[in-house]
Amino acid sequence: MTATHDDTICAIATSQGGAIGMIRVSGPLAIAYTSSIFCPIKAGKMLEDCKAYSQTFGNIVDVDGSIVDEVLVSLYRAPHSYTGEDSTEISCHGSAYIMQRILKLLIEQGCRLAKPGEYTQRAFLNGKMDLSQAEAVADLIASTSSANHRLAMNQMRGGFSQKLTELRDELLKFTALIELELDFSDHEDIEFADRTELRQLANHIEQVIAHLVESFHVGNAIKNGVPVAIIGETNAGKSTLLNALLGEERAIVSEISGTTRDVIEDTINIQGITFRFIDTAGIRQTTDAIETMGIERTFQKIDQASIILWLLDASCADRQFSDLQAQILPHCKDKQLILVYNKEDLSANLPIPPSGCQHIAISAKKGTHLDELQALLVENAHLPAITQADVIVTNARHYEALTHALDAIRRVQQGMDLGVSGDFLAQDIRECIHHLSDIVGEVTTDDTLQFIFSHFCVGK
Amino acid sequence: MTATHDDTICAIATSQGGAIGMIRVSGPLAIAYTSSIFCPIKAGKMLEDCKAYSQTFGNIVDVDGSIVDEVLVSLYRAPHSYTGEDSTEISCHGSAYIMQRILKLLIEQGCRLAKPGEYTQRAFLNGKMDLSQAEAVADLIASTSSANHRLAMNQMRGGFSQKLTELRDELLKFTALIELELDFSDHEDIEFADRTELRQLANHIEQVIAHLVESFHVGNAIKNGVPVAIIGETNAGKSTLLNALLGEERAIVSEISGTTRDVIEDTINIQGITFRFIDTAGIRQTTDAIETMGIERTFQKIDQASIILWLLDASCADRQFSDLQAQILPHCKDKQLILVYNKEDLSANLPIPPSGCQHIAISAKKGTHLDELQALLVENAHLPAITQADVIVTNARHYEALTHALDAIRRVQQGMDLGVSGDFLAQDIRECIHHLSDIVGEVTTDDTLQFIFSHFCVGK
Repeated sequence: MTATHDDTICAIATSQGGAIGMIRVSGPLAIAYTSSIFCPIKAGKMLEDCKAYSQTFGNIVDVDGSIVDEVLVSLYRAPHSYTGEDSTEISCHGSAYIMQRILKLLIEQGCRLAKPGEYTQRAFLNGKMDLSQAEAVADLIASTSSANHRLAMNQMRGGFSQKLTELRDELLKFTALIELELDFSDHEDIEFADRTELRQLANHIEQVIAHLVESFHVGNAIKNGVPVAIIGETNAGKSTLLNALLGEERAIVSEISGTTRDVIEDTINIQGITFRFIDTAGIRQTTDAIETMGIERTFQKIDQASIILWLLDASCADRQFSDLQAQILPHCKDKQLILVYNKEDLSANLPIPPSGCQHIAISAKKGTHLDELQALLVENAHLPAITQADVIVTNARHYEALTHALDAIRRVQQGMDLGVSGDFLAQDIRECIHHLSDIVGEVTTDDTLQFIFSHFCVGK
Repeated sequence: MTATHDDTICAIATSQGGAIGMIRVSGPLAIAYTSSIFCPIKAGKMLEDCKAYSQTFGNIVDVDGSIVDEVLVSLYRAPHSYTGEDSTEISCHGSAYIMQRILKLLIEQGCRLAKPGEYTQRAFLNGKMDLSQAEAVADLIASTSSANHRLAMNQMRGGFSQKLTELRDELLKFTALIELELDFSDHEDIEFADRTELRQLANHIEQVIAHLVESFHVGNAIKNGVPVAIIGETNAGKSTLLNALLGEERAIVSEISGTTRDVIEDTINIQGITFRFIDTAGIRQTTDAIETMGIERTFQKIDQASIILWLLDASCADRQFSDLQAQILPHCKDKQLILVYNKEDLSANLPIPPSGCQHIAISAKKGTHLDELQALLVENAHLPAITQADVIVTNARHYEALTHALDAIRRVQQGMDLGVSGDFLAQDIRECIHHLSDIVGEVTTDDTLQFIFSHFCVGK
């Protein structure tokens, strides 16, 4: 699949605040536009004459002749570039002002500001990668742990596409057998001896797709972190615990009740597993308008969590538990609830936890028993170890397509149970193939493409 | 001045969150270290054999053989690089995890993590730029407006150094005349005819240095913004006004008194002038511990401001003014005080301002008369327009050195008034030259260098 674009796009590819900034230009006039705002230090040198994969030192010159910055321009020629088009990369000082100024000059020359993900979209449309690989680029950039880096890298390098190709080969084999059956369907005396083989094949495909669909639970937790809600009464020490776990001052800690009004989210890695912590407003009766909103949000957040740390003040844990259990426990079904008795150092007798509840006593302020709490979190995450060869679904779009593919192959299985004709089976098999093709972008609509790439950052 | 370093340094040069990340490596083994973790896509190609200013596509490979990222490696050879040393730049996907991983691999090979500003420090020590140019690199990266970009670019390209060179030429001419005088000092019959010329020269040097010293007031306002404090009673609408001026929701705005507990700073450009706004806690009597701290900070902030916007609720402005004038007015000496009557739309009769006070009536919430308020700010900023050729001191270290140089040249002038001997004059002239040389780094101590470069970001 090859597409050509007649417009040239530009974007800032680095975020603000670094030492170095980079502006990318791609399209048929990328080199000409860059050249028109660039003056090489070496006299007589022309950017247009430079080799691909070379860098040229010089100045970006403003319309009034003043120098915007001293830069290095890297040159790429189609099809040997990220997008498959003629491209340049302008490496400048990392000032927001300079990067904006260079972008403005390029746009005045005739460049168009790139849409989010448009570089990768062009790479996809120019056949440099399939859609699941393109999506992995965004995941790779967002990767923050060894596990989600490994999954994204495997996907970007075609591991997932490879798995889908294998599946489609199986499905084509199935189709071939069905067609063989159809060819002989006039001969009523022919025994359908190959139905056994067909059945085995359908079962195998169903197993592989079901396995991929199931992997999304793990993939999503790896990609976004296992969500953990820290809840409890005002002043139980939620912010202090979050800070102790994050190892720095992320939330304002104050002696005054009701300080934490915003829901602050942050992640840490424990033994290679990402946990996404949700610090919440204290749960209590209040007339403060802002705080009431915070408490409502707390309950919404609990519903999104996999693990709930209910923080209780060890000195009055029984009272706190009985006060709030009617409010809290209904939100904890199907979740891992851990009672955390805080301020253990200030309590003479630790309370006896309600039976069946996981529990631990800590001091968030003094940092005691936090290791045990972390171990308890890892235990309750229920995540398997990941190897580089594992194919695990991390993308909601892929998950949806695979779910549809699974439905289709299960209809094939049912159809075979009911003895429906090969025509009907072939129709469901085609639908299954369609959904798998959707993942790699072979049958994807423009709307879907737009949706996918709009979630990329600009400059990629 | 040339220095060689026998260690090789590495650092991340882009900030997190962009599409592209860059890691810089510089030093005698930069190419060897990079090569040892890099596997070019094109078989048989070796990084060591690549040309300077070329880019090579390939993989960064982890110790276990897994691929960390697909990257482009740019190669530079001494002395034709930023630092003047052999260098590489590894352009990777902008994931924090990937950048950290590549950095770790380089360190395992033998690289050392660069200190802040160490690349530019090496460029300075290797004679690629003088110290005032090196300092301008940090200013250039931090530049956010056309005015401070222009000043930093002029300084980085040597405009300021050029001015200092001219000054030193004048001083050397002075020294030459003094020495001529000394040579003839045995001949008492020689008239000191050249004293007139000496005097003119000293006056001219004093004028130029004094002009540079004075320019720091403007330079500092351009570089850091004109500081504006917005003060007033709780609920006068300070946050709403700040938001209206900044054009977005930067501060939490709430109906509840005392919401703004933190001092939030932000800057905007009005007609090319940067204003640095200081939003403050409401001034009132309170028992709330956090709020009291906020009010104390408000008074500290007022002392740093050049312009004070005292926000008064138009419906009760007289009462608010008389309640707080004893607290506020003593802090407003030598500053531009503007009374801002807010909520003009809710007040039937606007109050009569105390005589001699600048004042304006607005509605922060409805956005009325904000243009007039902005014009009033520009008028009160007292900043001249800047052209590209202007040499303006923006750096506190330069300002200090110039102040010392000014003292020295003024001692020369006084010495001439008192008719002291050429020996004494020569001593002060030497001191003047010393302070000017300090600015470009010719006589600067290691401690000063460390201090300067520690304020750079890592990776530059």
